Amino acid sequence: MACHVTADFIFTGAGFESGQVLSIGDDGRVLALGSPPPGGAPAGILRLAGRVLLPGMVNAHSHAFQRAIRGRVERPGPDDFWSWRTPMYDAALRLTAPEIEVVSRLAFIEMLKAGVTSVGEFHYLHNRPDGAPPNDETEDPDDAVLRAAEAAGIRITLLRAAYARAGFARSTDPMQRRFVERSPEIFLARLERLAARWRSRSPRVTFGVAPHSVRAVDGAWIETLADFARRHAGDRALTDASFLPLHVHAGEQPREVREAVDEHGAPPILALERAGLAGLPYTAVHAIHVNDEEIAALSRPGVTVAACPVTERNLGDGAAPIPRFLAAGVRLCLGSDSQAEINQFEEMRTLEYNERLKQGRRILLLPPGARTPAEGLFACATVHGAGALGLAAGTLVPVPGAATPWADFYTVDLSHPTIAGADADPDTLLDAVVFGASPAAVRDVCVAGDFVVRDGHHRIEDETVREFRLVMRRLCGRP
Amino acid sequence: MACHVTADFIFTGAGFESGQVLSIGDDGRVLALGSPPPGGAPAGILRLAGRVLLPGMVNAHSHAFQRAIRGRVERPGPDDFWSWRTPMYDAALRLTAPEIEVVSRLAFIEMLKAGVTSVGEFHYLHNRPDGAPPNDETEDPDDAVLRAAEAAGIRITLLRAAYARAGFARSTDPMQRRFVERSPEIFLARLERLAARWRSRSPRVTFGVAPHSVRAVDGAWIETLADFARRHAGDRALTDASFLPLHVHAGEQPREVREAVDEHGAPPILALERAGLAGLPYTAVHAIHVNDEEIAALSRPGVTVAACPVTERNLGDGAAPIPRFLAAGVRLCLGSDSQAEINQFEEMRTLEYNERLKQGRRILLLPPGARTPAEGLFACATVHGAGALGLAAGTLVPVPGAATPWADFYTVDLSHPTIAGADADPDTLLDAVVFGASPAAVRDVCVAGDFVVRDGHHRIEDETVREFRLVMRRLCGRP
Repeated sequence: MACHVTADFIFTGAGFESGQVLSIGDDGRVLALGSPPPGGAPAGILRLAGRVLLPGMVNAHSHAFQRAIRGRVERPGPDDFWSWRTPMYDAALRLTAPEIEVVSRLAFIEMLKAGVTSVGEFHYLHNRPDGAPPNDETEDPDDAVLRAAEAAGIRITLLRAAYARAGFARSTDPMQRRFVERSPEIFLARLERLAARWRSRSPRVTFGVAPHSVRAVDGAWIETLADFARRHAGDRALTDASFLPLHVHAGEQPREVREAVDEHGAPPILALERAGLAGLPYTAVHAIHVNDEEIAALSRPGVTVAACPVTERNLGDGAAPIPRFLAAGVRLCLGSDSQAEINQFEEMRTLEYNERLKQGRRILLLPPGARTPAEGLFACATVHGAGALGLAAGTLVPVPGAATPWADFYTVDLSHPTIAGADADPDTLLDAVVFGASPAAVRDVCVAGDFVVRDGHHRIEDETVREFRLVMRRLCGRP
Repeated sequence: MACHVTADFIFTGAGFESGQVLSIGDDGRVLALGSPPPGGAPAGILRLAGRVLLPGMVNAHSHAFQRAIRGRVERPGPDDFWSWRTPMYDAALRLTAPEIEVVSRLAFIEMLKAGVTSVGEFHYLHNRPDGAPPNDETEDPDDAVLRAAEAAGIRITLLRAAYARAGFARSTDPMQRRFVERSPEIFLARLERLAARWRSRSPRVTFGVAPHSVRAVDGAWIETLADFARRHAGDRALTDASFLPLHVHAGEQPREVREAVDEHGAPPILALERAGLAGLPYTAVHAIHVNDEEIAALSRPGVTVAACPVTERNLGDGAAPIPRFLAAGVRLCLGSDSQAEINQFEEMRTLEYNERLKQGRRILLLPPGARTPAEGLFACATVHGAGALGLAAGTLVPVPGAATPWADFYTVDLSHPTIAGADADPDTLLDAVVFGASPAAVRDVCVAGDFVVRDGHHRIEDETVREFRLVMRRLCGRP
């Protein structure tokens, strides 16, 4: 039986409207969004009074297990990205698969509580802590992450990451033994077995492939993964989309650019295109250090850039050239990456604020078609992320000919101090959400019609926090 | 009768310690912080289990009424600070004194809920909307702000701001009629009458003077206010400190610097020093566009810089040269300024993150004496702010010879998803608070031994939000 939801205002893509009803089918997809029928609102309607309802946000780039190092990497030492990696590697090596499940579950719960209903999990832990392949699903970190998503109720695209070496002309580092698989064939076989286990188990699980970076895989690996993505476009064994998502880190650090030029004679984006990504839909994560030719490549339809500004400011990566991306028509989405914070509102506004800091002016990110920065930024946080993951999400408006969107949404409490008063002017309500709201203002979160968060509380939050605190005690040597 | 409080960890200035008891006297000040007496914990002790207790933070620069424009100034238009001012002026002109009370009360409640127990309110609305002086206290915006602070329970230093003109060689703008007083004598007489009304009424209220900026007041005004501050150092009719706080905006915008050079032959800080601030304790707010000579002046003991990085990124002001300040020994504190967000955790980390974005490296702000960025940033958010306002606050450790600190503190919930697990390594707990915590993790907030926030909820939050939403409807023309 269909269920019906209303709220003070519902975001319809063009703006906020009152008096709208969202009808959800038994399959968890949107049946309709519009004015109630002439006879009045349907019986049994759920009224979310004092709240605004928005399409769930899409976190297009996450490494969930890195939640375990939040706040533990802010100490003096060799002062760059590569030193941050050492504590990250330590956590990556020491967490057991069941612990990875707990850490990921907490990260996914934090995302849901912040209005994020879909995650692109760029997952590169595949082996046991000793580097051997897992003997069974309980030892398999890939399964652990998917079990975490299932328990939390978040929609997930597992972007299974391929990692082969420490860098150009460098073999693997023992610290990376948990990431590395011996050949693309092994990588792909494990991906297909994983998908076989999970696609029938949950409609919330889809897959993609992720050559980690031009640093961690060579041209042959990239070519094999690109071929696989091309051959499996629209393969229902892996994805709901007409393509297979392919994500890759590119242009995060100047050193990576120099090494790409050494190896490929071209910077990362161009090296990737030459190695097989040309013509294929893909998502380039970070794309901070990119030249004009790379920006032109990134502007091709089907290509997306995933910016992770909250992580990028934490890591000292820099800020991507967003105005140049917008001028070139590059599609942008957002990711929480290292989980330094999990706050997609902050990701949105940081994109604009970084640019204000650079230029000393205001109101700088106006993508074509957006009236305001908030409109453009909210599209990055929703529909563009959904596009990068191949999901019918990020919008609640069914479009003829396209896949019917999932009923993935969240509400914001109009009485929360961060946002209170914003409904006095519905025309600037989205501005208030994007520039002012805190995750703490999120009240209800629904994935495929299933309310996983009610009144700001996730249904398995308490036990997950308890388990996570025990994991952290072990990780920090306090058993 | 004294009251006693304990928590899993208490911040003692040097770090977090467990097993500590905070004892609070009937006067609302700290009696003792330390291990319980040999006989064990005192009877009737309040145990805040699962929480860490920290000294209340000090928000050294606030314009509370600007909460009314949050989210309403993010639209395309002439793209600089001076255009942002137009909506701000609109709110400043149209809010009645009782409405200013409501808006300020909500802002103060949001601060308290975020762990801020003291505010330096740089207040420049003094007249009726028509520009006439108020006939009585109900019409007086100064009283309105103090009534708001009293109702919310926050400690406040009212930095009464002097405003005389639109700028160098420009008379007043009718839009500024609510700020302007005809002479320094009128300004000071009103300050003294206000203090006479409030100092006996509440020990949480102190005063300071604030020449608005070198733009808004000329050299004669500055000299008169500086003389007043010098003559009233330690005047119990105004302050609890041995000096009288004097705050001034300086170096926020390049145009302001150019105009100061035109009028005074010197940039703002040097112009202020020449006009009478030399040798006096004062706080320069923003200090973004400053030269080496100004930085040297700011490094004098007694002088503080109030950085407002969350507002400054919103306004496109830029970021102050913090590493040069630290190298010169400049004392830094923090302010929420325009209330674009009220989040002192974000203020702290933004200071470090802005610098990472500029330099492309990590771990950059290490003031002398601090082992970690978190230690230095937390001092900015607490003791240095208290120093700038002349308050015995920002610490819970009594120091012989100094005023006994107020029992102003807050707790953070160790089960909140933003911070969960951080107590597994008490050595990095402060890092986790500074770099990871959200105001939503704050549970209890106490001012002078009085719990104004319990379990994350302020005691008059609900009715204040209701009143604020009505004010916003009127302001937005939806009565």
